[in-house]
Amino acid sequence: MLNVTIWNEFVHEKNDDQVKAIYPEGIHKALADGLNCPEFNIRTATLEEPQHGLTDEVLNLTDVLLWWGHMAHDRVEDEIVSKVVKRVQEGMGLIVLHSGHFSKPFKALMGTSCDLKWRVAGEQEILWSVNPAHPIMSGVNTQIILEHEEMYGEFFDIPTPDDLILVSNFEGGEVFRSGCTFSRGQGKIFYFRPGHETYPTYYNPEILKVISNSIHWAAINSYANKPVFGRSEPVRALKVLV
Amino acid sequence: MLNVTIWNEFVHEKNDDQVKAIYPEGIHKALADGLNCPEFNIRTATLEEPQHGLTDEVLNLTDVLLWWGHMAHDRVEDEIVSKVVKRVQEGMGLIVLHSGHFSKPFKALMGTSCDLKWRVAGEQEILWSVNPAHPIMSGVNTQIILEHEEMYGEFFDIPTPDDLILVSNFEGGEVFRSGCTFSRGQGKIFYFRPGHETYPTYYNPEILKVISNSIHWAAINSYANKPVFGRSEPVRALKVLV
Amino acid sequence: MLNVTIWNEFVHEKNDDQVKAIYPEGIHKALADGLNCPEFNIRTATLEEPQHGLTDEVLNLTDVLLWWGHMAHDRVEDEIVSKVVKRVQEGMGLIVLHSGHFSKPFKALMGTSCDLKWRVAGEQEILWSVNPAHPIMSGVNTQIILEHEEMYGEFFDIPTPDDLILVSNFEGGEVFRSGCTFSRGQGKIFYFRPGHETYPTYYNPEILKVISNSIHWAAINSYANKPVFGRSEPVRALKVLV
Amino acid sequence: MLNVTIWNEFVHEKNDDQVKAIYPEGIHKALADGLNCPEFNIRTATLEEPQHGLTDEVLNLTDVLLWWGHMAHDRVEDEIVSKVVKRVQEGMGLIVLHSGHFSKPFKALMGTSCDLKWRVAGEQEILWSVNPAHPIMSGVNTQIILEHEEMYGEFFDIPTPDDLILVSNFEGGEVFRSGCTFSRGQGKIFYFRPGHETYPTYYNPEILKVISNSIHWAAINSYANKPVFGRSEPVRALKVLV
Repeated sequence: MLNVTIWNEFVHEKNDDQVKAIYPEGIHKALADGLNCPEFNIRTATLEEPQHGLTDEVLNLTDVLLWWGHMAHDRVEDEIVSKVVKRVQEGMGLIVLHSGHFSKPFKALMGTSCDLKWRVAGEQEILWSVNPAHPIMSGVNTQIILEHEEMYGEFFDIPTPDDLILVSNFEGGEVFRSGCTFSRGQGKIFYFRPGHETYPTYYNPEILKVISNSIHWAAINSYANKPVFGRSEPVRALKVLV
Repeated sequence: MLNVTIWNEFVHEKNDDQVKAIYPEGIHKALADGLNCPEFNIRTATLEEPQHGLTDEVLNLTDVLLWWGHMAHDRVEDEIVSKVVKRVQEGMGLIVLHSGHFSKPFKALMGTSCDLKWRVAGEQEILWSVNPAHPIMSGVNTQIILEHEEMYGEFFDIPTPDDLILVSNFEGGEVFRSGCTFSRGQGKIFYFRPGHETYPTYYNPEILKVISNSIHWAAINSYANKPVFGRSEPVRALKVLV
Repeated sequence: MLNVTIWNEFVHEKNDDQVKAIYPEGIHKALADGLNCPEFNIRTATLEEPQHGLTDEVLNLTDVLLWWGHMAHDRVEDEIVSKVVKRVQEGMGLIVLHSGHFSKPFKALMGTSCDLKWRVAGEQEILWSVNPAHPIMSGVNTQIILEHEEMYGEFFDIPTPDDLILVSNFEGGEVFRSGCTFSRGQGKIFYFRPGHETYPTYYNPEILKVISNSIHWAAINSYANKPVFGRSEPVRALKVLV
Repeated sequence: MLNVTIWNEFVHEKNDDQVKAIYPEGIHKALADGLNCPEFNIRTATLEEPQHGLTDEVLNLTDVLLWWGHMAHDRVEDEIVSKVVKRVQEGMGLIVLHSGHFSKPFKALMGTSCDLKWRVAGEQEILWSVNPAHPIMSGVNTQIILEHEEMYGEFFDIPTPDDLILVSNFEGGEVFRSGCTFSRGQGKIFYFRPGHETYPTYYNPEILKVISNSIHWAAINSYANKPVFGRSEPVRALKVLV
């Protein structure tokens, strides 16, 4: 059983009728419903909750955290950001969705600006697998077509991913590294591009399958085999220094 | 001509007679002398200077910055750290030496704890090339022996390097990824392990050759071909959305 | 249930009394016994069997193939090698053990000489984890000590591994990238260094745990989501060329 | 001064009027003219010459070899292929162009099928830089537009590249990893996608700039610092085995 926490800033869905029509109970609720499987114990958390819903207890119990944010990145408190970053480094999986590329935890873990090109024009996105043997692509078609999505274009200012898994083609001519893995400390991170708030992307079964696979991939037993740091005795006897 | 700035906290060399005996004018001065070549325009900067010697003017003129620090990481002001990080992301090369693994700029650029095992016991270190075609290894022996060095041991908590170049064997039984490259934004970073303040490592010609090569490798024309970010027009006409 | 085939050239164990004393029924049998778990359906195959025991039927049924060879690499027939390579590219996992670095299938999949330094001197090997979050390290100590092993030293002439997992320190001063992953087509490959025939390495529970984990890691459903190649219709309408 | 050999099968240009009109003296001649710079000492070689123009003398003198082939891959003799592969492993740079993805040397060095999707429909290709700090992108626009090219689509069956540099968007909806680096032994390899014989791609100054940069990048002093293999004495004294 994996403890999954879905974090959503939950602002657009309350303020914008177009978004509300698509995600009436919020993106977090749509994801929780769509990802529902016997192996996931899912909870949600949002910006407006105390400590953004990410108390120490919640974070310590979370195996994998999903993160969707957009308009309110700067309203996420630095203290909570530090705790999320630390838990990732200690082994909590992190799935960063769409505009979460500019979230504080992702930027802190990447060490780059995480900037990109963008355009909201309802254009077609086609995601192509460039890594068919990766567990995140297990049972997923080698091509996913989204009729309408926001465009994100290269250069996407991230460090070289450990694994590049999906690359998008946009109708307007751009490309984007849409599925990328990273590790930081003992934690595994997956960035997954699709999911603009004005399109029903998180109801797409292929998109949900990728996210579900990524949760399984990112979950490790983060409390086992913790690396040891600091002053260390030699394994083998040293020559005595004169 | 490459503008190279060597930053050194310059504390041990003033406070510790053993270190002073080895580096009487500071590690930065020893490196500046040892790296002296017609293609480098070298300046130095230290902690005690105003703005740690890293004014906007100095940073903007610097093609490659070397960083040595140990006891005084927390005395480096966050504002200067932010400027260094930003300049790296915009294309300034960064060579992080030895205990600089725990410096604020390196940790911010890595997104990890950068922790490791260590031991000061004067033991032998042997560095082995695992990447003989890399420009940083050009003209360097495939094996470098340092009779006495501090031990650093794995797990070294860094992201997966772009290129792993050198791996060390320590007499006491440990190994360490001693030469690692990373890119962040347009900036190239080289972490190079050797150089504890109580050993004369920075007088070793092979060590100086590696550092010299890494400066050449890290220097790019950081003001050319700057990536473009933000809202972007389509290259190709889009279908009109109904 | 995973179908695991353990291939061993099985020559040393018949010709050399020292090896026979350690592996009386062959390395393949020791591995089959040691890896015994309810999820593995293990068979073995050896050089002297018809088609080296690797008939089309066996290969097609195999999810993960282990390979140990040393003295008789050139007695493995090219036709069988081609079939093994093709099955790996189509998704069969491959675990290459110790002197299998010079086997025909491994060299064909790597595209390099796969050469290295070596010495049989019964010296101590210490394997260190450099990738604690990797599934191959799940439940494995961050340090494995083998009191007596053959030395393998860098430069190990392989392509850059996808994931570097373990690095060895040898008493005589060398290092070695001892646990390395690669992918070729849909197939996942793990090279694992330890296992010289004159030492009882394959009875070590930590070594067996690494191999067992690597089998789970390398097994994919190789018949699902097969990539499509060749002439392809556009997904989107093209402008008509004038 | 770098010794550059441009190899071209030179079949289309003799048999097909459309191709002949674009490259009247052959793709090799167009490249030799376009790449002309004081630092390159360029020679050409073609299929019909004795030993395909790749005698031992030519290969030994070549720092970087360019390879264009398409219809006649199987007419390249295995003996020559082996020599090319060996020289690459020993340090000769190799630039594989367009349909050279299916050439014998490239497939041998990759260990994969190197297969892909394709379509000749004169559609627009846009190449995007995903690695702006890489020397191969020095002075190259972050976006290159080719009005008419053959489509190559993912999954491109290659090993994970060391560096991914350019990704293409095709009008019909596909993407492709169009600029990829690999190392094999001491040799550096760059695969660069554009260049179908029925389009004037090799007259495009941006395309020529990428190829020129890649030649500089791939050229190393292949006779210096040759790795040492084989039986090896310990650097440090071993304990005597009882």
